[in-house]
Amino acid sequence: MAEPFTAPIDNFFNPRGVAVVGASATPGSPNNQIVQFAKQMSLNGKVFPVNPRSDEIVGLKCYPDLMSIPEPVDLVVIAVGAQHSLGVARQIARRRGEKGDAGAVAVVTAGFKEMATAEGEQLQSELIATIKASGARIIGPNCQGVADTYNGVNTTFSVPPNTPKGGVSVISQSAAFATSFLRWARDQKLVGVNKFVSLGNMADLDFRDLLAYMSDDEKTKVIAMYMEGIVDARGLIDISAKVTKRKPIVVIKGGKTSLGTNVAQSHTASIAGNNDIYDGAFRQAGVIRAQSVAEFYHTARVFDKMPLPKGNRIAILTVVGGPSTICVDELVSTGEVSLAHFSDELKKEAAKYLVASANIGSPDGYIDMTASVNPKMHTDVLRLLMNDDGIDGIIFMTTPPGFIKDDELAAAIAEGYNSVPDEKKKPLLSVMLAGNAVARCRTLLEEQGLPTFEFPDDAARVMVNMVRYSAYRRRNACQ
Amino acid sequence: MAEPFTAPIDNFFNPRGVAVVGASATPGSPNNQIVQFAKQMSLNGKVFPVNPRSDEIVGLKCYPDLMSIPEPVDLVVIAVGAQHSLGVARQIARRRGEKGDAGAVAVVTAGFKEMATAEGEQLQSELIATIKASGARIIGPNCQGVADTYNGVNTTFSVPPNTPKGGVSVISQSAAFATSFLRWARDQKLVGVNKFVSLGNMADLDFRDLLAYMSDDEKTKVIAMYMEGIVDARGLIDISAKVTKRKPIVVIKGGKTSLGTNVAQSHTASIAGNNDIYDGAFRQAGVIRAQSVAEFYHTARVFDKMPLPKGNRIAILTVVGGPSTICVDELVSTGEVSLAHFSDELKKEAAKYLVASANIGSPDGYIDMTASVNPKMHTDVLRLLMNDDGIDGIIFMTTPPGFIKDDELAAAIAEGYNSVPDEKKKPLLSVMLAGNAVARCRTLLEEQGLPTFEFPDDAARVMVNMVRYSAYRRRNACQ
Repeated sequence: MAEPFTAPIDNFFNPRGVAVVGASATPGSPNNQIVQFAKQMSLNGKVFPVNPRSDEIVGLKCYPDLMSIPEPVDLVVIAVGAQHSLGVARQIARRRGEKGDAGAVAVVTAGFKEMATAEGEQLQSELIATIKASGARIIGPNCQGVADTYNGVNTTFSVPPNTPKGGVSVISQSAAFATSFLRWARDQKLVGVNKFVSLGNMADLDFRDLLAYMSDDEKTKVIAMYMEGIVDARGLIDISAKVTKRKPIVVIKGGKTSLGTNVAQSHTASIAGNNDIYDGAFRQAGVIRAQSVAEFYHTARVFDKMPLPKGNRIAILTVVGGPSTICVDELVSTGEVSLAHFSDELKKEAAKYLVASANIGSPDGYIDMTASVNPKMHTDVLRLLMNDDGIDGIIFMTTPPGFIKDDELAAAIAEGYNSVPDEKKKPLLSVMLAGNAVARCRTLLEEQGLPTFEFPDDAARVMVNMVRYSAYRRRNACQ
Repeated sequence: MAEPFTAPIDNFFNPRGVAVVGASATPGSPNNQIVQFAKQMSLNGKVFPVNPRSDEIVGLKCYPDLMSIPEPVDLVVIAVGAQHSLGVARQIARRRGEKGDAGAVAVVTAGFKEMATAEGEQLQSELIATIKASGARIIGPNCQGVADTYNGVNTTFSVPPNTPKGGVSVISQSAAFATSFLRWARDQKLVGVNKFVSLGNMADLDFRDLLAYMSDDEKTKVIAMYMEGIVDARGLIDISAKVTKRKPIVVIKGGKTSLGTNVAQSHTASIAGNNDIYDGAFRQAGVIRAQSVAEFYHTARVFDKMPLPKGNRIAILTVVGGPSTICVDELVSTGEVSLAHFSDELKKEAAKYLVASANIGSPDGYIDMTASVNPKMHTDVLRLLMNDDGIDGIIFMTTPPGFIKDDELAAAIAEGYNSVPDEKKKPLLSVMLAGNAVARCRTLLEEQGLPTFEFPDDAARVMVNMVRYSAYRRRNACQ
């Protein structure tokens, strides 16, 4: 028998058809939700539930087994109990032999190596060996598989079908972590998503394979990863170093401590490895490592929404002194970012627009418009800062005064930002303190692609990350 | 002439009457808003706008000058332009001489020492000297004064009159920073506030005076401070060490870096001082120093809502592996917190309530109920953890499954928490990942006094702060 043809990873994201083996007719159950979401997302409607005890699930014809689906099936979701998974694997092998499709398999079933039993480990080995021998590739087991907002794929029961499209692709060892990110972001349009991969136990495909695939994916502008551990850390860093020459990778790593590692092991059977070694390796490879969940979420989404800064000279525009103090502290604390230098012309020009008590340039690079602001001042000063080549990025901070309406303020900020052509654009991060009181203004800005923040230090950390990555890119441009 | 009687600070928070000098009849202007808020908050209705050009402001009789107010006025708000402030100061002195009231003065006017001009500094000196010579005390200038939700006082134009009552008292050098906290918290009832003080330039009263006052204030359960700098740092630490034996102080410090210090100087003319020295001094005095705005907000509000942990043994209850890994990493990273030890009885009992695939005790102190949960499991396991004397605190994490309703989940958690009498209560922090999708469930819990979080590492940092402060209190109990 000839060596089996190894299927391309693209089968996961561009399948001609998707089979859900273990589909359930019970509304609200995870295995029913999977079919529902797959159907809602599908562009060609080629979703095939498989369950010998049902004729129809969520309005789709149900098949008794994988073999009986008459149309091409590139992606198979295994959602049966662990004890039945081997039988499905054998059907996949048979289908590949007879029809040549079924090249991508997402094993969402749990109960394998993560159980830390000899039985679980043995079952996983047999399952993976059977599928791999057929040349098909596997994501999982113990995962939620994949989603793709542009191609209309969803094998999960938790990625909302109405997730906004965008340039962020997520690769995660924790489905819960990644879907929380998407759900957190949805209402305010904070994040636009392209691809979503829940890796689970990584018995076949792991971060390396998905990174390589997404590196070539034009719609992926930034890759965001939640990682617990990987066997081939060297290989991960090598591929990461290649990817970061083209697009940013943001990572948050679980298992920094030995107790955290124990949790990760019980979760996805991962060996977290030495934290400091990962830290150094990420830095060398140009991977941006977030130290908190908030930093991870915001950095990933801002890399998608904003252009990279061309340097490290940042201007601060504010109406609030205390939050700006906190912001500047955070911004300059690593030594990678400076406040911009304001020319005399810029200061003179800014003074024309603002009240006499405004603070322009003390310290250099800093403007406090005071609470005596109107929308036009925002536009005028932002235009000035956007047009100045000595400024590489801007952080704007406000507690919007009651006398300025949300839509007026949002329009004024957007007008200032858009006063320069695209090639002159630089990152503008807007901090809107005051919680839900400014939710509408934030949403209006986010919808126009202008990222907003609740807290001044969150914005500062994101700007540091952008400056760091941009510097890495410039250093490694010609290699 | 006899030495003037120095008025008690209580005049700011329990005034028989409040005069607003410089009140404005223009709706929406700050000086109109001050009168509006003062009126809305007042319990006795004794608010007296002063402006020679108006007869009535927001429905209140307006007086031509301070002297003509026939009723007792304990608190005077100076809101005139800086150039007119000295005239008001002289009236205050006269009123104190003739009527003996006007003992508390909030100077909200700006344009003094923070301008960094000889003129601004000179004006501030004269103003303060004139008022102090009369025995009255001053908050400001360049501030928003005070608010008190229980006594019905508000001299600000930004503390919402409907701010929920509670045990957090805020002392801030930045009004914007502190009011952002209140506005951020209001909709979801995240924070209950008692007193609010915006200190501004601190020409008379500073952190030391307000700390001493709030230490004796029974309704103040925790003091939250935003600080840029203080001249008498030694005095601050001495009084703080006394206060922290009775109630927690949480601080966030602006001006960690020299550029941040420059911003602070332009803001409130503060000298920020050496960051490391503050750090060590705060630690010695038992003051909890937050490293981010989110940590500051959450720590302050949780100290108010939850009892202190009696030790450092924390249990984790979860349905989400990845976020729990991040949480445990953060929780144990400083070495001050351990995971609790589960007895065999506890594990056996927990197993009765949960599905077979649940992870109970791997690692020790950790329970993953898996996604196969129902509301009753939450109640049963929480009751078990609340009743176990080997556990000092609990962090619970979830992305609520679609099949559990918000109010059912909130009720189940509250029932588990309330299954023990008050003296056995321990902190329970609930992380509800998924943003606005769980906003209702979070609000239901917050309304019952159970704090919730968006991010797992935020909850972990708060728990570390509670354990740290509780250990400090035990070590310093008998001194």
